[in-house]
Amino acid sequence: MTRTRFQHGLDELKQKLLAMAKMAEHAVDKATEAYRMRDLKLCQSVLEGEQAINTIEREIDEIALDLLAMQQPMAVDLRFILSVIKINADLERVGDQAVNISERVMNMIGSSPSDLPVDILRMASTAAGMVRRALESFIQGDAELAQAVLEMDDIVDRMNREAYISLSRMIKTSPDVSSQAIDTLLIARNLERVADHATNIAEDVIFWVRGADVRHSGGALPSRNVL
Amino acid sequence: MTRTRFQHGLDELKQKLLAMAKMAEHAVDKATEAYRMRDLKLCQSVLEGEQAINTIEREIDEIALDLLAMQQPMAVDLRFILSVIKINADLERVGDQAVNISERVMNMIGSSPSDLPVDILRMASTAAGMVRRALESFIQGDAELAQAVLEMDDIVDRMNREAYISLSRMIKTSPDVSSQAIDTLLIARNLERVADHATNIAEDVIFWVRGADVRHSGGALPSRNVL
Repeated sequence: MTRTRFQHGLDELKQKLLAMAKMAEHAVDKATEAYRMRDLKLCQSVLEGEQAINTIEREIDEIALDLLAMQQPMAVDLRFILSVIKINADLERVGDQAVNISERVMNMIGSSPSDLPVDILRMASTAAGMVRRALESFIQGDAELAQAVLEMDDIVDRMNREAYISLSRMIKTSPDVSSQAIDTLLIARNLERVADHATNIAEDVIFWVRGADVRHSGGALPSRNVL
Repeated sequence: MTRTRFQHGLDELKQKLLAMAKMAEHAVDKATEAYRMRDLKLCQSVLEGEQAINTIEREIDEIALDLLAMQQPMAVDLRFILSVIKINADLERVGDQAVNISERVMNMIGSSPSDLPVDILRMASTAAGMVRRALESFIQGDAELAQAVLEMDDIVDRMNREAYISLSRMIKTSPDVSSQAIDTLLIARNLERVADHATNIAEDVIFWVRGADVRHSGGALPSRNVL
């Protein structure tokens, strides 16, 4: 296989991953809209879309494996391919979270929306925005943008903690809305997981771009010899 | 690098992953014991252990990358290494779930345990057992054992659904225990995530052993040419 064909494979990998990211992000948007509208059809649409996300996840892994098997990649390409494999797994789990949110919304349909002390829509748009930016940072090879995503995670974590406190209190004082409040609490946690996956993706981007592993250390470490 | 040194690297990779798995499983056991005893010290011990898990995760990734970079691996080794990379990420998240459980338990300390309609200990031992068996299936290259793990996931999913139903009902009827019940509901969800990670690991083992991707399909697919 020529170097050109290998490059073509890398491009295909990148394009597929972008398509995958759009599908995952779209699933979160749909689940959020389903929450806002208490819309059963949108929930079902998210559930039905899961299979397509799983299929493209497998395709991406197969392309990545083929590239690794066909030619000894240069270190920079190797790190790129491994980043794709990890980002791919995270995106699939973003899709899973959208499914979880939809399942909770399906449980809420029938009860008229109560005024709950949590801004799920803002939390969702922040988390989905993190996924989008993490992918942008990947496409542009921009470690600084990836770093900004890591910082956004603190915002979502705080929103999640506040949701837990205010909803727990409401559940205690207003048992009549407890069912909705519990589902909303779980949706807040699902959104926090979406933000976590975006954070993982941003860490993989930094790992790839800087050639150093900042995962769990909060700062760049020296890279190893080989890579 | 000789083939023998490459094999030595693969063995090191396997041993490190086993050590990592023991740490992750131990973290879940400790968090569960912390729940049972409402033990703050055990919670703190889980939180402190997170760094060690993160460190070994990075070491495993670095060994895997070095192996991929140093020699063009044979297809079977390539699949093995990629399985390790994915299993590694799942184990790290099992550790994260133990941390999440410990944080919930820390919130419960001070209130005397109520009699809640959920068997967290059984759920925890099932989920931790899934992680252990998934790793056994990996070490032994045993796709059938991995398949058994996939089936255990249904049990944990059912326990989680039952916990949701019974605890939601209790929260509504007994607001005085709602705080504990909410934390326990969240712990049940964390355990369900542990089981999900064990399921992912088992799927990766099947992928590696059978040379076919059964992820999300429920059955073996024909393998691709290269692998």
